[in-house]
Amino acid sequence: MDESDMDRIGVGLLGCGTVGTGVAKILAENREILQSRLGADLYLAAACDKEPAREKEIPLPRGRFFTDAEELLNDPDISVVVELIGGIEPAKTFITQALAAGKSVVTANKALLAHHGGEIAAAAQKGGGDLLFEAAVGGVMPVIKTLRESLAGNRILSMYGILNGTCNYILSKITFEGKTFDQALSEAQAAGYAEADPGLDVDGMDTAHKLAITASLAWGTPVDLDHIYVEGIRRITPLDIRMAGEFGYRVKLLAIAKRRRNSIECRVHPTMVPMDNLLSSVNGAMNAFMIHGDAAGEIVLYGQGAGRMPTGSAVVSDLVDVARNRLCRGAGCRVPILSTTPEQMRRLPVLPISDIVTRYYVRFSAADRPGVLSKLSGILGAHDISISSVHQKGRRATGPVSIVMLTHEAPESGMQQALEQIAGLDVITDKPMLIRIEDDNAQEE
Amino acid sequence: MDESDMDRIGVGLLGCGTVGTGVAKILAENREILQSRLGADLYLAAACDKEPAREKEIPLPRGRFFTDAEELLNDPDISVVVELIGGIEPAKTFITQALAAGKSVVTANKALLAHHGGEIAAAAQKGGGDLLFEAAVGGVMPVIKTLRESLAGNRILSMYGILNGTCNYILSKITFEGKTFDQALSEAQAAGYAEADPGLDVDGMDTAHKLAITASLAWGTPVDLDHIYVEGIRRITPLDIRMAGEFGYRVKLLAIAKRRRNSIECRVHPTMVPMDNLLSSVNGAMNAFMIHGDAAGEIVLYGQGAGRMPTGSAVVSDLVDVARNRLCRGAGCRVPILSTTPEQMRRLPVLPISDIVTRYYVRFSAADRPGVLSKLSGILGAHDISISSVHQKGRRATGPVSIVMLTHEAPESGMQQALEQIAGLDVITDKPMLIRIEDDNAQEE
Repeated sequence: MDESDMDRIGVGLLGCGTVGTGVAKILAENREILQSRLGADLYLAAACDKEPAREKEIPLPRGRFFTDAEELLNDPDISVVVELIGGIEPAKTFITQALAAGKSVVTANKALLAHHGGEIAAAAQKGGGDLLFEAAVGGVMPVIKTLRESLAGNRILSMYGILNGTCNYILSKITFEGKTFDQALSEAQAAGYAEADPGLDVDGMDTAHKLAITASLAWGTPVDLDHIYVEGIRRITPLDIRMAGEFGYRVKLLAIAKRRRNSIECRVHPTMVPMDNLLSSVNGAMNAFMIHGDAAGEIVLYGQGAGRMPTGSAVVSDLVDVARNRLCRGAGCRVPILSTTPEQMRRLPVLPISDIVTRYYVRFSAADRPGVLSKLSGILGAHDISISSVHQKGRRATGPVSIVMLTHEAPESGMQQALEQIAGLDVITDKPMLIRIEDDNAQEE
Repeated sequence: MDESDMDRIGVGLLGCGTVGTGVAKILAENREILQSRLGADLYLAAACDKEPAREKEIPLPRGRFFTDAEELLNDPDISVVVELIGGIEPAKTFITQALAAGKSVVTANKALLAHHGGEIAAAAQKGGGDLLFEAAVGGVMPVIKTLRESLAGNRILSMYGILNGTCNYILSKITFEGKTFDQALSEAQAAGYAEADPGLDVDGMDTAHKLAITASLAWGTPVDLDHIYVEGIRRITPLDIRMAGEFGYRVKLLAIAKRRRNSIECRVHPTMVPMDNLLSSVNGAMNAFMIHGDAAGEIVLYGQGAGRMPTGSAVVSDLVDVARNRLCRGAGCRVPILSTTPEQMRRLPVLPISDIVTRYYVRFSAADRPGVLSKLSGILGAHDISISSVHQKGRRATGPVSIVMLTHEAPESGMQQALEQIAGLDVITDKPMLIRIEDDNAQEE
């Protein structure tokens, strides 16, 4: 087909930062490949950034540059808007405006979707355009497409994600180089894997955003971020990771979601994963996502969770989907935006962290005195927590020792009560360290 | 939405064996989940098997059972036909007939697609229906969708697949339990992981079928099966796998495809994969597929490559896609069947195995006499093959010794000539063993 005969689909890009530049670069450099897969010409009609200097950085061979988003949103050549501004406002207003005008929207904005996904999906539904967000979860990994399409015939049992490259990079540094958290964070910042303000990543909220989105897709339920238990990696020490290794585990920041009969578990915390589980082999800044479906069994996706070109690739895959929908019938919503049709969405409660049952690693710093171990195990036993193994480390002439225990399955509420009581003992010299263990089993109730 | 208001999409199933039963089971048991994701009722309207006894095995709550495929193909309630008969005929005739009638077809038939994919795609194009085949490659892994959709904006650089569960199961048995090939094959047969006639699996042709399909999708070229170099795993010994382990490698049967400037590499052979490559951790009957894209970087998919429910899950995902297309516009071909539009397909030659350049593991059985090593390395050197390390194993009082070498990169043609010359030496007691090595790098020319 000659290019002049081809249908043309104009893309408008809001936000010309790292990922925006990647999207523009892919559209320009892989234009012929895209044409060969689309039978149409997908081109960047306009880009917009409030910073005028960014015009020079963005490949825009056939488009215009604006500093005012209104100009882009009102451009009649643009049928799909890519939102890469990030954050809640003004991104939300721009997206809503584009959807109301019947345009399709592609976004990588996980915070916005986690907070207002339902509202924005409804706006898309009403406008008749597509709303796609593959790049919002796990960068290049096709997590959203796998949930909305490839596993459409499955009842999802559980999901486990390594969804934050910064955290995984830091944990890998602690694991393989014995660095402390602070040292590893500095190196991550120097290597460009962590922001100057790393809180959103290392405290787990970025992972929680992604968990809220995927759990919603998996089970057709809105998920409130406030109901997700979130614990970051700041307290993880080289000692804990070494001990985990001795027990046959690696420590990963996991997003964990499980279907229960009338509720779901959604939690983000450092987790001990057995060495023979593929997730334990995911190192550095790489991401992975494991899904258990009733028919599919276990599926794992693995890839770069961030970065100019990988995230750009995910955005472009969404643009191709939008273009294919527009070429078929002029609009979108071929696949339900939140995987389930709006009529069939049902609210499932998220189980409070106190109600989960799991295995634990606990480390106590205690004065090296006789009888300590019996005191600790006595308190645990009184809360019905049974111990599967005990190690004592770092016995020195003076100073505290580390007592490490692995437990059998126990309810979180009992464990927290026991820890509180133990923390109050005068022999205990520091706050106890607790890491939850996920053994490799898709539990269904 | 009330079920009685829903659009209905009738599915006709040809072939009620293992996977067919799985498809019927998923459609029946997960009917409500499917409705919630589709907003329509996807139901099994009819199933057909030439064996009448199979009617009792297949869940068919709302459909009819035929023993004559013509009856199913002519049923006006059926808009999508699932072909799970396997083999070339009569599957090809039935599929062509369904497509000519404007129906959509979902198939898991890799042999048929590898031999006649272009012809069948053209029939779908003409009829206006969909032709989907996620279950033909890698069972539950979304390999086809990832290539056709998620990586649509990428120039694919290379692909590496563990695509045959039987071979991976056997190699894992040899690796972790020191079994011989014959022992491991018997155990695979006893465990249901290998057919009574295992040739299609262990000699590599099943993997080659899948490679032909995926390479065609990746690069918009027809791929002739005859042009793919295929070598199976029958000659792999516990000794080779142990030696590979000492050098830091695992042995896997890989499908390898690489893009070169004006050609492609497509080959199937036992391959040494570095331990730090995720593919080396894929054990038992599991499958994995690694793709390098210019923008995406490395993506890995992992899951069950066969089995009733996993393969059934892949078939059902295709049915959902077909249904979504039909609900949108009454027909298919929203995504080009072979990923590239027919007008843009271009034939790329497959590079002969003699023209590839790679690293090698070679094991020689030789009489334990002075000067053997110098003879071997002299011949290799004369063919420009340089050695990176040498080990000698199994020195006994009498009898041959094993000399194992790893080489630097060398052209296959030179290596084959050197091996032929070495095999003719009177000190050589057995045919030399050669395993190609893939170090983890996406090479682009």
